Amino acid sequence: MAVGFVGELMGTATLILFGDGVVANVLLAKNKGQNSGWIVITAGWAFAVLCGVLVAVAAGAPGHLNPAVTLAFATATGDWSNVVPFIAAQFIGAFIGAILVWLAHLMHWGETEDQGLKLAVFCTGPAIRNYGANLVTEIIGGFALLFVVAAIGSKAVATPGYLAPFIVGMVVWGIGVSLGGPTGYAINPARDLGPRIAHAVLPIAGKGGSDWGYSWVPVVGPVIGGIVALMLAKATGMM
Amino acid sequence: MAVGFVGELMGTATLILFGDGVVANVLLAKNKGQNSGWIVITAGWAFAVLCGVLVAVAAGAPGHLNPAVTLAFATATGDWSNVVPFIAAQFIGAFIGAILVWLAHLMHWGETEDQGLKLAVFCTGPAIRNYGANLVTEIIGGFALLFVVAAIGSKAVATPGYLAPFIVGMVVWGIGVSLGGPTGYAINPARDLGPRIAHAVLPIAGKGGSDWGYSWVPVVGPVIGGIVALMLAKATGMM
Amino acid sequence: MAVGFVGELMGTATLILFGDGVVANVLLAKNKGQNSGWIVITAGWAFAVLCGVLVAVAAGAPGHLNPAVTLAFATATGDWSNVVPFIAAQFIGAFIGAILVWLAHLMHWGETEDQGLKLAVFCTGPAIRNYGANLVTEIIGGFALLFVVAAIGSKAVATPGYLAPFIVGMVVWGIGVSLGGPTGYAINPARDLGPRIAHAVLPIAGKGGSDWGYSWVPVVGPVIGGIVALMLAKATGMM
Amino acid sequence: MAVGFVGELMGTATLILFGDGVVANVLLAKNKGQNSGWIVITAGWAFAVLCGVLVAVAAGAPGHLNPAVTLAFATATGDWSNVVPFIAAQFIGAFIGAILVWLAHLMHWGETEDQGLKLAVFCTGPAIRNYGANLVTEIIGGFALLFVVAAIGSKAVATPGYLAPFIVGMVVWGIGVSLGGPTGYAINPARDLGPRIAHAVLPIAGKGGSDWGYSWVPVVGPVIGGIVALMLAKATGMM
Repeated sequence: MAVGFVGELMGTATLILFGDGVVANVLLAKNKGQNSGWIVITAGWAFAVLCGVLVAVAAGAPGHLNPAVTLAFATATGDWSNVVPFIAAQFIGAFIGAILVWLAHLMHWGETEDQGLKLAVFCTGPAIRNYGANLVTEIIGGFALLFVVAAIGSKAVATPGYLAPFIVGMVVWGIGVSLGGPTGYAINPARDLGPRIAHAVLPIAGKGGSDWGYSWVPVVGPVIGGIVALMLAKATGMM
Repeated sequence: MAVGFVGELMGTATLILFGDGVVANVLLAKNKGQNSGWIVITAGWAFAVLCGVLVAVAAGAPGHLNPAVTLAFATATGDWSNVVPFIAAQFIGAFIGAILVWLAHLMHWGETEDQGLKLAVFCTGPAIRNYGANLVTEIIGGFALLFVVAAIGSKAVATPGYLAPFIVGMVVWGIGVSLGGPTGYAINPARDLGPRIAHAVLPIAGKGGSDWGYSWVPVVGPVIGGIVALMLAKATGMM
Repeated sequence: MAVGFVGELMGTATLILFGDGVVANVLLAKNKGQNSGWIVITAGWAFAVLCGVLVAVAAGAPGHLNPAVTLAFATATGDWSNVVPFIAAQFIGAFIGAILVWLAHLMHWGETEDQGLKLAVFCTGPAIRNYGANLVTEIIGGFALLFVVAAIGSKAVATPGYLAPFIVGMVVWGIGVSLGGPTGYAINPARDLGPRIAHAVLPIAGKGGSDWGYSWVPVVGPVIGGIVALMLAKATGMM
Repeated sequence: MAVGFVGELMGTATLILFGDGVVANVLLAKNKGQNSGWIVITAGWAFAVLCGVLVAVAAGAPGHLNPAVTLAFATATGDWSNVVPFIAAQFIGAFIGAILVWLAHLMHWGETEDQGLKLAVFCTGPAIRNYGANLVTEIIGGFALLFVVAAIGSKAVATPGYLAPFIVGMVVWGIGVSLGGPTGYAINPARDLGPRIAHAVLPIAGKGGSDWGYSWVPVVGPVIGGIVALMLAKATGMM
């Protein structure tokens, strides 16, 4: 088993526990954070990244937590040795994280009428459905994530390892508030597809469909955007 | 007296002064922050942790401020020498902090009609009462806290001591926004039971009952979750 | 002229420019941030402290920006040499900062009908007027500020100088959300009295009285609390 | 081509992608962050600065991202060699960033009726139109930015390069909440004029005029304020 498999798995599980957790808190009926708004959702995902990366790094993984990150770095560095185990770990971790979110909010699924809100806890959906435009938004989001991550890890910036998880979290807070409006900023195939599968599988009280028609957008977009970002980062001396 | 007793006491008093203080500001009638929402409450608890840990560490304590943390580390390390004095200090500190919150908002108790809000300043309660499900939520919350704390303190991450209180505070902000919906995220027996006792004892204007039926959940849950977290952290090389 | 006079003056002016500025933005009519709430006000004061301390330190001052801080450290260390010039600088700086806030929002004073809101831009007032209780709140606030500041500067925590302004800012964010409800957390005589004098002197469109009856509370309370805090910090080995 | 041209261009594009992006999220119809308020807008611009400076520095630029910064440092240091290429890069970058914002929100322009909101995504406008007063506000904003930036970079504070982008971002959060009310805090000619040109040029669905009458205020004001700030910083030993 690749070094880092367990770390990527646990880190991504932590990411989804916090990330899908905050959506549950804001969207599910009777939660104490119900309707607390976009600042809470985006803050939650920021801290989710902070916590997930900390856990992954502590367990010896790089803390990608995201197939778009793994694929972009593999493309940029030419080292594809960890791609399959890391992506597998990220999807398994995301699935486990989604189960924990379901359990932590067990009483609230049945209290929530809107099936769309229940799905939104697990995965993203477009504000206005137009797969082409939605894909562009997710490409730009994935680009922004990887471009700034490259900057954080550049020689010129030289962010210390103990600080990088926090800075990346703040960047994801930024992506959320700034680029999350049209599609909910998946920017991560595992973050979206893993919990979407969990939504389909788990016995969630009163759930509806899992919107498989949209499911490819948050998988394809971030990967394209991420690869383009690191290509540009390489071309401009950022990495 | 164990080294660290005074630090744990003062740090936990600071934690509760800020933490219960923000709930008072948001819930009690005529406060300037009344109804300012979940982002304010969770921010307040984040800074409460920052301040409490700073004070405890400055006074020579480790800054647990939480019996679940103390018990989890004792279980993980096998060193039980400080468990009794630290937990005693944490409960005494929490009680003192609650008194300060009562004093700081002295005019606002009588202005607040809802007895449930007055109790909520001091201790947590479930959004939907189901002791089994509530316990699961608090176990997951306690797990998340200790799991990420272990990561922060891991050799791989190596957070400097001057930065750790801030990072732990941000993690608790994350727990609040993400996992606080169903039970109000006690994640700390002293934080919940100490001020609950203060609520029962203090001459709070127009107070109601202290909800002793629920009081065991935020004591038992975080301890179970915390111990499981550090066992897993040890098993996966995070500590 | 004492070394640090100019720094304390410019730092306190910066503090008030940002701090009173955020209150103006939230309270004055037609401002883009009008009614944006307690999270905005408390965030603004947090960044005000960050900016003010940075400026003061950059100019060779310690960055007290607050007579309660200056008096508490003088009491704790026995070094009273800078007390008079620093406090003078802080009041002059606060007055200048208040003028800048008045100018920056020049068109908005006449648009705002409520005279109480206009006063609230400059200085604090109690949510429920009871000088005894208000004083207790300000004592606790001043205590919290100095107690945690002592922790930040302790040998055990050893916060680097470049990070301390940010951490102190976050602590003040905490004081705002947690302890600011009953009295608006002056926690600083210069921050309150300096701009109150500016309110009385400046030709503010449609202004009312300056509430001199309350003005002593935010002067006396923070000084008492601050001195007690550093006495306790010394007694417990934090400094 | 001057060293840093590409970095300033990419950094400013990132700044505008995040910065104008957050305004789009909050103002455009049907966005998930619609009406999420001033805290979200100001947070978005803070993280925009964080991300933009990181990118610029990673690519070997100083990370000014702002002609007011470039001109103020040139005036203060006497080194004008990079002024023209940097300002050109900043305007080109801002224009590119605005295009990306338009693309990322492609479906939302036609859904938004108010032409003023569409313009507000790209550039600032006054809450109360009075060019003299608006100019004063922008002068004070530009002054505050450069004065605190000088403090961050001073010998006495000595902020490490990996932390400075974050601290500058927090300062801009402060400027937004505290000084952004009357004019929307352009504090940057490129940030305002570059996207204003993009607004005029791009085929935005249902757009209105670009308010050229106001366009000089956010160009002139920040430059004046910035130069005054660094003159004062030099005179007081901050740089």
